[in-house]
Amino acid sequence: MEGKQQEFKQTTIIDIAKELNVSKSTVSRALNNHSSIGDATKKAVQDLAKKYNYHPNDIASSLSKRSTKTIGVIVPLLSHYYFSTVISGIEELAYKAGYKVLICQSAESYAREVVVSQTLLSSKVDGLLVSVSRETKDADHFKVFQSRNIPVIFFDRVCPGMEASSVIIDDYMGAFTAVEHLIQQGKRKIAHLAGPPLLNISQNRVRGYKAALEKYGLPFDEELLITCNTGLERENAIEATQVMLNKGILPDAIFAFCDPLAIGAMEALKSNDIKIPEQVAVVGFCNEPMATVVEPRLSTLVQPAFKIGAAAAQLFFDQINNNSQAVEQKVFRTNLIIRESSQKI
Amino acid sequence: MEGKQQEFKQTTIIDIAKELNVSKSTVSRALNNHSSIGDATKKAVQDLAKKYNYHPNDIASSLSKRSTKTIGVIVPLLSHYYFSTVISGIEELAYKAGYKVLICQSAESYAREVVVSQTLLSSKVDGLLVSVSRETKDADHFKVFQSRNIPVIFFDRVCPGMEASSVIIDDYMGAFTAVEHLIQQGKRKIAHLAGPPLLNISQNRVRGYKAALEKYGLPFDEELLITCNTGLERENAIEATQVMLNKGILPDAIFAFCDPLAIGAMEALKSNDIKIPEQVAVVGFCNEPMATVVEPRLSTLVQPAFKIGAAAAQLFFDQINNNSQAVEQKVFRTNLIIRESSQKI
Repeated sequence: MEGKQQEFKQTTIIDIAKELNVSKSTVSRALNNHSSIGDATKKAVQDLAKKYNYHPNDIASSLSKRSTKTIGVIVPLLSHYYFSTVISGIEELAYKAGYKVLICQSAESYAREVVVSQTLLSSKVDGLLVSVSRETKDADHFKVFQSRNIPVIFFDRVCPGMEASSVIIDDYMGAFTAVEHLIQQGKRKIAHLAGPPLLNISQNRVRGYKAALEKYGLPFDEELLITCNTGLERENAIEATQVMLNKGILPDAIFAFCDPLAIGAMEALKSNDIKIPEQVAVVGFCNEPMATVVEPRLSTLVQPAFKIGAAAAQLFFDQINNNSQAVEQKVFRTNLIIRESSQKI
Repeated sequence: MEGKQQEFKQTTIIDIAKELNVSKSTVSRALNNHSSIGDATKKAVQDLAKKYNYHPNDIASSLSKRSTKTIGVIVPLLSHYYFSTVISGIEELAYKAGYKVLICQSAESYAREVVVSQTLLSSKVDGLLVSVSRETKDADHFKVFQSRNIPVIFFDRVCPGMEASSVIIDDYMGAFTAVEHLIQQGKRKIAHLAGPPLLNISQNRVRGYKAALEKYGLPFDEELLITCNTGLERENAIEATQVMLNKGILPDAIFAFCDPLAIGAMEALKSNDIKIPEQVAVVGFCNEPMATVVEPRLSTLVQPAFKIGAAAAQLFFDQINNNSQAVEQKVFRTNLIIRESSQKI
């Protein structure tokens, strides 16, 4: 793909020179309106450039900008299987196209995200693929890439306040489907362990949860919407679930923002001798490897992580090949896998 | 730390110039044996440089080499919790010292490892921290860093054929302890699911396994030493264990190279209605999060992954601060955690 792009650009410059029987430097100077070039030549070159849809600035920047054939990637957490799988999807396309991939971790910290984005800018990456930290509210550190004509593509977690292409999943429908499934299992008091409130994906999953309740005429109960503010690991859900149980609140189902939270909730339920799924059914999100190790095995929504990574890389290649920053959004659907944690089999 | 190093070098060059009452460029040219400098000056400068233990090449390279305050890291697999935790340990020290971390994945491929090491070299990292792929046999792609005075530190998996500092664990003792524990549980026919044969860590764990058998007078049986050549995931062990069972071989214990292999073996045993630990006890290596999710919970050897990462970063800082490439090896001990997979509790 990248080869195609270079061929296209180089051919055009040579074509202008050949077609007008002048040197390449004459073309370049004519496009930059240099005083050493006569008006007739200038006009001829500029007309032809226009015909090929070429602007002097593009040419200047493409001549001066040396591609490093490197893509920068920032993920919030390397320890989540979802993100390492997305990275594999990005790498699959990148390496096939002769590109390398430099990875940084924001560790869910906005400050760290700013630092690593600067590091990748210094490394002269040709593009940046990002899933933002749970603290990220502004986009200035990403906009600097766009201002230098370096494509920025978001995946999964998009950055508020910035126009950029992205690959997301239909979180709303995913959550709706999970909660509808629980209702169809006869559950009526469904709790949601929600994700970090700033993230688009958390907000959309909460919306899907509420919409499913509404569709089936179930009341929304504030007490059953629990935000795990401390983190997205099992420990955080063990604690949050125990706090809920200690308050005397016992739902008949739990839909969790991600599998580690779902599995943490299951651990808390089991240590309170609460039967899964008979007393409390549980559904997660992501289909991490742990989902089939835990007993009972966890029902969960599959996100096509590898495909999401590949699609994000493809959006990058589309942008550099078309030399365009047109904003495009690819949306993948999730797929509910029903296992023993939500249905007696 | 980095500031201290710069200060030391700059002071010395200025000192030579001041002490001889000549310009810095005279010092530089004298050290490079430039024809424009008289013999007496040359000798005076060179004698003083010798006194300060400075060589022209060092000075030239230290003048030309601009620190990027970036550490490059290459891991075989981002999807293993062990490696993402090591990275967190590296980052902890690095960011505190004002350094950034660029991460690449070799995906267990030698070819990919060569490419990403070149990428990190192009990004002008100040140091390289590596755990090699399971295919890596030679060190040329790493030696190029050393030849440019960029420290290379290995962690966990060291590179054969190269003198470099490293942080490892005592794999031999870890394996010995695990197998001794199984013998003390009354097990006599202990299989080992071994790791990639090229890796030092696999070889040392096999040695520890054999040594424990020998200590307790148990015969070594080739058929019970099974190498998972296809990979280090659960699926690979499910297959290898099933193949073993199909041959009519039933050990009374399995010691696995890593937790995903141990858990895969458990899945195969369970699907054959073999009781764990009564019929077959299982011990893993790493204490991945899955070890406490699987039932029965998995006995395993804890490696201090975070500390290993921090120690590797510390070796890097020691080398740049002392401007030395002295080879140092830090060895951490593993700690056996006994859970229900190997002992009735």
